[in-house]
Amino acid sequence: MSNSSIVRVSVLGAGTVGSEVIRILMQRRDELGARAGAELMLNKVLVRNLNAPRSVDIDPGILIDDPEVALDGADVVIELIGGLEPAFTLVKRALQQGSTVITGNKALLARHGPHLYELAEEHNTDLYYEAAVAGAVPIVYGLRESLTGDHINRVVGIVNGTTNFILDQMASTGAEYSQALSQAQAAGFAEADPTADVEGHDAAAKCAIMASLAFHSRVSIEAVSTEGITTVSAADIEYAKQSGQVIKLLAVAERLQGKIRAEVFPALLPLTHPLAAVNGAYNAVILEGEAAGRLMFYGLGAGGAPTASAVLSDLVAAASHRAHGGHAPRELCYAALAVLSPEQIPVRYYLRIRVPDTAGVLAEVAGIFSHHGISLETVRQDHGDREEVHIGVTTHEALQGDINAALEALRKSEQVLSIDSILRIEE
Amino acid sequence: MSNSSIVRVSVLGAGTVGSEVIRILMQRRDELGARAGAELMLNKVLVRNLNAPRSVDIDPGILIDDPEVALDGADVVIELIGGLEPAFTLVKRALQQGSTVITGNKALLARHGPHLYELAEEHNTDLYYEAAVAGAVPIVYGLRESLTGDHINRVVGIVNGTTNFILDQMASTGAEYSQALSQAQAAGFAEADPTADVEGHDAAAKCAIMASLAFHSRVSIEAVSTEGITTVSAADIEYAKQSGQVIKLLAVAERLQGKIRAEVFPALLPLTHPLAAVNGAYNAVILEGEAAGRLMFYGLGAGGAPTASAVLSDLVAAASHRAHGGHAPRELCYAALAVLSPEQIPVRYYLRIRVPDTAGVLAEVAGIFSHHGISLETVRQDHGDREEVHIGVTTHEALQGDINAALEALRKSEQVLSIDSILRIEE
Repeated sequence: MSNSSIVRVSVLGAGTVGSEVIRILMQRRDELGARAGAELMLNKVLVRNLNAPRSVDIDPGILIDDPEVALDGADVVIELIGGLEPAFTLVKRALQQGSTVITGNKALLARHGPHLYELAEEHNTDLYYEAAVAGAVPIVYGLRESLTGDHINRVVGIVNGTTNFILDQMASTGAEYSQALSQAQAAGFAEADPTADVEGHDAAAKCAIMASLAFHSRVSIEAVSTEGITTVSAADIEYAKQSGQVIKLLAVAERLQGKIRAEVFPALLPLTHPLAAVNGAYNAVILEGEAAGRLMFYGLGAGGAPTASAVLSDLVAAASHRAHGGHAPRELCYAALAVLSPEQIPVRYYLRIRVPDTAGVLAEVAGIFSHHGISLETVRQDHGDREEVHIGVTTHEALQGDINAALEALRKSEQVLSIDSILRIEE
Repeated sequence: MSNSSIVRVSVLGAGTVGSEVIRILMQRRDELGARAGAELMLNKVLVRNLNAPRSVDIDPGILIDDPEVALDGADVVIELIGGLEPAFTLVKRALQQGSTVITGNKALLARHGPHLYELAEEHNTDLYYEAAVAGAVPIVYGLRESLTGDHINRVVGIVNGTTNFILDQMASTGAEYSQALSQAQAAGFAEADPTADVEGHDAAAKCAIMASLAFHSRVSIEAVSTEGITTVSAADIEYAKQSGQVIKLLAVAERLQGKIRAEVFPALLPLTHPLAAVNGAYNAVILEGEAAGRLMFYGLGAGGAPTASAVLSDLVAAASHRAHGGHAPRELCYAALAVLSPEQIPVRYYLRIRVPDTAGVLAEVAGIFSHHGISLETVRQDHGDREEVHIGVTTHEALQGDINAALEALRKSEQVLSIDSILRIEE
């Protein structure tokens, strides 16, 4: 309990984020220690290859390639390896030996979070993960600590910088998706295998974490209805632009009918929406509290330094608790709300349907919507080339299940040539 | 340390915020208790008049008009009286008896904060004050906890809803200040005596609190250079509009030359600035962390419910610490940076100077600036009526002391009829 307590910190992984964490930790050790009320000591750094070149100068005596040794004697373990294994095994082992664990590993948490929270509680230690959602933007703190006195009804955010960059590129250059993806890869904003980002899995993991925290329930990544941006076309973007809207990949977690709606999907947003102006690599999350109203958190959602900032803030809290007692807030699950099935989610859509230019087609299309209980808000017919007509419709709110059934019926109809756009509308 | 711990909560003051805190506390006692891991019990509610009508139904057995009795047996004391006395005396007494104190009283903190932090430490208890800055926007948490691993270089925000509403009114209706103030008073956005808001004192108190937290130093309200909005004219607003800018009352706390710049002033902001779009009663604060980059927090800065949300979040943290051990982060002052004197602050200005339409006037005016080492970025002459000319100048960065000297020289010059606009420019 004295100010001279020593807190030994092991870092697993010395990639972009790990190197930055180590660099700042060495450079500002005294300042961080003063805040924690404890002396921070770099214990071990686990790396894959002891001889690889590094962007930060680490004492060779603490570099190690043996996970067992890296965990040994650590009060705090910072896991920055990423992915499920060996991260899962090492985090479990660290918690079992009573170390506090700090991780930025959203895939790990979205898959094994509940197990790890229980393990931490069982061994009377803590798990911190601010860096797992939206980089330096303190959304985990916001949900876990600073809004804990309020009743959150809705969380909606842009939590993936790669897809936001790609959609921005498409909007500013008119490029098709595949072209914008190549540009993002060339600019270092998308990985060689972009699947986790562009298919929405990364955003879904963050959505699961935010939904669990906001609604005090266990929401796993599998329960999040997820749609990526790979089917968004240049024509979709052009439609958005002409109608005063933008397309953004949203993560939404909401209380609905006593259950949780948890979704990731590309959506049309009006330009006046506060998320419409969030560009490039920026992330933003809006929390709607019953008393607080609408709060927005905005900042850099990725990158070595912003993510390191989140990790080090967790480290100060963790070290302070190790030295002076106290705990991170428990992961509460007292509400245990179920997740709403995708078919039950009320949605609005914009659809563009290609039909032949013959009499009665519009009546046929309208009839299909009406048959499935879907009311249309606007209908617009544009005559294309080659005796074709594009029918653009926006629906009133309908259940996703009814929309799915109507889409199937449209696809089967002999009067429908193709459905060229299927876009969610969010207000 | 068990989940059945009882935490007794006394609320001092049952005005707008107090009533809302009590209402939510009674309505969601179980949920808040589950989060705190303790049973929350409303102990006493201190009111001025026992028989006054109330917006919330309080058990008459706990209503009390005697402060001594209200504090008696309280684990947590929520001070929502406001102002310096009797709040100061009661908060001191509460800390001395070891109660945790939660307050939304920025005037109290800006004046007596250091004394109260020490008192809390001395009696091994905590002081929470999320509600003191920007209502439900968790800026105190952001600075005190979630960015504690980073090195903050700058905090800039709109933290007073009344002045923001008045400046908005002026911009949208073209009204003069006094007229917009009356409208704000009629709409309930300004008090009968608006001094604390319009003269910038309320924003200065918040600036002092934010600067102290961001820079781990003691900054009192007296050290904040403060200018309100009472001299902003319809012509100033019109100039802003025509030049693609808006005028906002800013609170700025910044590391500069190894000291702290702490200021409140109305400033011209370009429309592209993220604070330019913060309208009406909304507050927004940008934190610039060395690693995190620029983070923005945005939300409702005042009002019963948003402020109650902040108080109740503090209550959950306080109750959890009472029941399970641990403390709020200490108020650290290890940096102990001095505050930069106003004359040493580098600033940029827009000035509109009325002169007679005679030869050599511009040279005279330009000479005065040059004599004081101030370089001009743009100069624009407009011929007004009655053989007068308006000279509008924007300066490059200069020291406030030099600007003051130049303004004095301009006022003394026989060639200057009046100085009609003196506006800071912020980028």
